Amino acid sequence: MSETTCEKIKRHCQPFTYAFSLSHVKSVLIGMVTEYETPKIITIHSYSIALTCRFVQLVIVFYAFAYLMWHKRGYQDRDPSLISSVTMKVKGIGTFNSSRIITLDNADFIIPPQENNALFIMTNFIRTDQQRARCAEGLDIHDAPCTNDTHCQLLSPYPPKSNGRWTGKCLPQGRCEIEGWCPVENDLTMPTPIKDSVNFTIFVKNFVEFTRFGVSRTNIFHDSRAIKKCRYHPIHDRLCPIFRVGDLLKFVEADDDERYKMLISGGVVRIKIDWMCNLDLGEDKCKPAYSFGRLDSRSRDEQFSIGFNFRYASHWKAKKRSHRTLTKAFGLRLIVTVNGEAGRFDFLVLTLNIGSMIGVLGLATFICDIVALYFCKQGSIYRKQKFQRVKITSTSLSTIHKHI
Amino acid sequence: MSETTCEKIKRHCQPFTYAFSLSHVKSVLIGMVTEYETPKIITIHSYSIALTCRFVQLVIVFYAFAYLMWHKRGYQDRDPSLISSVTMKVKGIGTFNSSRIITLDNADFIIPPQENNALFIMTNFIRTDQQRARCAEGLDIHDAPCTNDTHCQLLSPYPPKSNGRWTGKCLPQGRCEIEGWCPVENDLTMPTPIKDSVNFTIFVKNFVEFTRFGVSRTNIFHDSRAIKKCRYHPIHDRLCPIFRVGDLLKFVEADDDERYKMLISGGVVRIKIDWMCNLDLGEDKCKPAYSFGRLDSRSRDEQFSIGFNFRYASHWKAKKRSHRTLTKAFGLRLIVTVNGEAGRFDFLVLTLNIGSMIGVLGLATFICDIVALYFCKQGSIYRKQKFQRVKITSTSLSTIHKHI
Amino acid sequence: MSETTCEKIKRHCQPFTYAFSLSHVKSVLIGMVTEYETPKIITIHSYSIALTCRFVQLVIVFYAFAYLMWHKRGYQDRDPSLISSVTMKVKGIGTFNSSRIITLDNADFIIPPQENNALFIMTNFIRTDQQRARCAEGLDIHDAPCTNDTHCQLLSPYPPKSNGRWTGKCLPQGRCEIEGWCPVENDLTMPTPIKDSVNFTIFVKNFVEFTRFGVSRTNIFHDSRAIKKCRYHPIHDRLCPIFRVGDLLKFVEADDDERYKMLISGGVVRIKIDWMCNLDLGEDKCKPAYSFGRLDSRSRDEQFSIGFNFRYASHWKAKKRSHRTLTKAFGLRLIVTVNGEAGRFDFLVLTLNIGSMIGVLGLATFICDIVALYFCKQGSIYRKQKFQRVKITSTSLSTIHKHI
Repeated sequence: MSETTCEKIKRHCQPFTYAFSLSHVKSVLIGMVTEYETPKIITIHSYSIALTCRFVQLVIVFYAFAYLMWHKRGYQDRDPSLISSVTMKVKGIGTFNSSRIITLDNADFIIPPQENNALFIMTNFIRTDQQRARCAEGLDIHDAPCTNDTHCQLLSPYPPKSNGRWTGKCLPQGRCEIEGWCPVENDLTMPTPIKDSVNFTIFVKNFVEFTRFGVSRTNIFHDSRAIKKCRYHPIHDRLCPIFRVGDLLKFVEADDDERYKMLISGGVVRIKIDWMCNLDLGEDKCKPAYSFGRLDSRSRDEQFSIGFNFRYASHWKAKKRSHRTLTKAFGLRLIVTVNGEAGRFDFLVLTLNIGSMIGVLGLATFICDIVALYFCKQGSIYRKQKFQRVKITSTSLSTIHKHI
Repeated sequence: MSETTCEKIKRHCQPFTYAFSLSHVKSVLIGMVTEYETPKIITIHSYSIALTCRFVQLVIVFYAFAYLMWHKRGYQDRDPSLISSVTMKVKGIGTFNSSRIITLDNADFIIPPQENNALFIMTNFIRTDQQRARCAEGLDIHDAPCTNDTHCQLLSPYPPKSNGRWTGKCLPQGRCEIEGWCPVENDLTMPTPIKDSVNFTIFVKNFVEFTRFGVSRTNIFHDSRAIKKCRYHPIHDRLCPIFRVGDLLKFVEADDDERYKMLISGGVVRIKIDWMCNLDLGEDKCKPAYSFGRLDSRSRDEQFSIGFNFRYASHWKAKKRSHRTLTKAFGLRLIVTVNGEAGRFDFLVLTLNIGSMIGVLGLATFICDIVALYFCKQGSIYRKQKFQRVKITSTSLSTIHKHI
Repeated sequence: MSETTCEKIKRHCQPFTYAFSLSHVKSVLIGMVTEYETPKIITIHSYSIALTCRFVQLVIVFYAFAYLMWHKRGYQDRDPSLISSVTMKVKGIGTFNSSRIITLDNADFIIPPQENNALFIMTNFIRTDQQRARCAEGLDIHDAPCTNDTHCQLLSPYPPKSNGRWTGKCLPQGRCEIEGWCPVENDLTMPTPIKDSVNFTIFVKNFVEFTRFGVSRTNIFHDSRAIKKCRYHPIHDRLCPIFRVGDLLKFVEADDDERYKMLISGGVVRIKIDWMCNLDLGEDKCKPAYSFGRLDSRSRDEQFSIGFNFRYASHWKAKKRSHRTLTKAFGLRLIVTVNGEAGRFDFLVLTLNIGSMIGVLGLATFICDIVALYFCKQGSIYRKQKFQRVKITSTSLSTIHKHI
């Protein structure tokens, strides 16, 4: 018997129309409040399978619990965004041997005077008093030596690494002339670093705030007397916020020779302050941990641009002429990184984590089933019991049609 | 009947060899495409259990939905990594009463002129003109008073907190001689802060970019006329990016006396800009919220190193001699923290979250089962129906052996 | 038959007392080690349902796998907190045409000489030599023109935007007198930017450390010779850490006119360094990717405060008088953002993610069941098989009572 298109659609739509029919929706709703549904469970009486399965479950529960609840502290609400303010102060007096011995204090060797989360301590420098004028190019410029003006004119106005605008003239001393700051800085010979710079002390004042919990902490735990004398030590005084430069260098670099090179050519050192706070133990237990590291390459590994240096100048005018003192500063750049996380017991987080742990338990059932059904002698019996086959016979089919 | 080792292994391996045998794998694969498996469900006709269970399920769904979908906006893909640029400008003129009244503008009281996410406004200072020379040690150094050279020589070259290298000489005025910058700074008496410094205004220009969504926003919402006159107010003008110093102090410190001390000795203030953007509401709704806080301890709580200060110097040379003006600057250090997260509807994230919510629903079944089976009068009947016991009889065992 | 309250409580508590009775707890514990429980499964022999269901499962597995395992690399433990140190050096010589042509080097146009994760290159400036004195107010102050002292006295001491304290006197040239730094800066006419500033090169040295994995990387991959000559190019040399200012401007701004305006009035540019490291491929594959963007508004869109500028001063004293050179600096502010994440294979993370994927598979069963039971012709048959009704008859009830 052939069908029309309309009949075909009807036949295909039947289940949909049935599913959304008033009577069906009503029976589903009534079912919801009168009937409780729970999966039918097959219990297999077997010591070996049961014990295997309990073991798998235990391992998974322990695994999930240890990781999620203990290691990750899954019962706590966490605030990883801490607001931090770092203030650093350096104390110390050093002497430097240039043409004559000069004494330097912290206003001389901290440049710029204040930075955000960073500090530069100058340990060595080359200073040149300059005026705007015309003079010979520096000795370190390979193209500078000349015999006549043509050579200088060809490279004019700016050969690479030049110290000023080339005028195109060859000076009698056999070097091209520049127009700019004169005389040119001579950084070919390195001076010895500032004496006693290893004895400088750095006071790091850190203030952190966990805004979600409204908890504020500072890194000062000593009383006003003790803090004036304490020095940080990784074993004996782990909470003292005053660091000796020499100690810092020892923490980050084991090699004596390399440490001395850091004083001569400069280097980058990080101070990491970790605030891992379990507020359930009380706010007093929330204390910082300091760690140190070198954030530059060792001079032997580095092929290009060793150490850390930059140039700065102080400008003034005298008799309407511009003067400046150019300083090429080598030294230690300290970068302070403040890291932290606070946790406090939270019921909502706990329940959500328990929920996801129960989800992970599904993995246990999955593994046990595979073991019991496929890797077990009596597997086929269990399979027969576990899986109930449904075959649709013509009788039952006709029954449905009557139903619908 | 005794077995050989080989036979033992064979017997134990049987299930494995069976599990991976070609015929078994084939039947499993055929089963996969021809048979649909679904857990058998027991429906218990009981009003009380059904209603209890629906209630538990509802609570859990509501809980998970409210937390995950509403509070955490689980339907959105989120970009927590925003790129921000902060530019700050201070406007104002102040007068300072040292030996004579001097007028200061922003190039005088902003030091250094530009910082990354921070700003320092000097509100008080002690200025000393110095030269490299020899002179008496400062009055605040406890070891400085002397009667003869021996005392000074013992402490030479650098007693703690000294202002220069001690020469070992006792000067006629009864203080040890230093070699360094002279005369020594005298910071024993604090001057009064810069007049009108509370009237300075800080213009904070913030530009943020959510790279994942390609959305850029600035914190300027007023038109060019209005912005020149507006002042931030927590109720009346919450979007004006211009802050009066006096207002800022009032936001972070309620106590008048303490506020005045912050002007004298300095302090650290944070400005937090929060960009919590629901991009589904349109980019225009993405507006910043400002919050303020003190990032240092109140002067009464602090035992050591109150306020915020640092020293800086301007250097020059005259008649071949080095001169500097040393300034001990006290003032407000503003630290700007930009925080933000943008979210936009994402189908993938939605489905994954729905998936994990269904996982949490497993918790409902778990709780209901325990209630129905163990804390219910008819529990044992349900248990009998829910749990179907499988006992392995010798007949069925022999059947399997035939099968294999 | 009526009950007493006590009997009622007893009747209600019965299940509880039973649940926690010794014999029951014992039987549950014995059951735990001797019986293995697994859900009873109905297998429905139907090609169409089975195939639909396998398809749904495949889609979900693929979806979860592709997203969680491939896109999010769910098999790796990740360390998103990298510690970074950025050092920047600018090379170049420029000329500036003020009253006469002057040559500038990097100590002149980098202000302040060192910043944390930022750099300012001055491309244009207005310089004024000033002394503390009394003089006429600036031409750009709208309130300054006066005819008599009364006008100036009314606005005294600080009208908005004034350059100093108003004395209240009207000077003969018809402008109010100020007391402060004289003469007042005139920034009405903008000079042309520093010639050759587009040819400056910026060397960005970046050092990153993933502390969790103990991996350190620098952004220098060229040998010492090649690095002196290389220039960053988005296609030809993506790893060269030396950027030409002109190239940077081209990357962030396509419009020629706008680029020139950035040199005149300044602008903010971000350099983002992304370290996305898959440590399973080897540390050598861990290389940075640079991206660039403008972090300010284009001059045509901006209504207020175009570009980027600030004022700084160098101070000195001559003949006991304070002098300063005030510079209004316009230029490019470069903000370097270092972003990164390292991942390494971790068994624990892998298993936890597989666990949550199995949880998501529950979604498949949920969808398939709805399709099979409600949108399928033979749905009612399946429902009959799947759902086994439990009706509590009086006989069975009496049986329980005997049991207890």
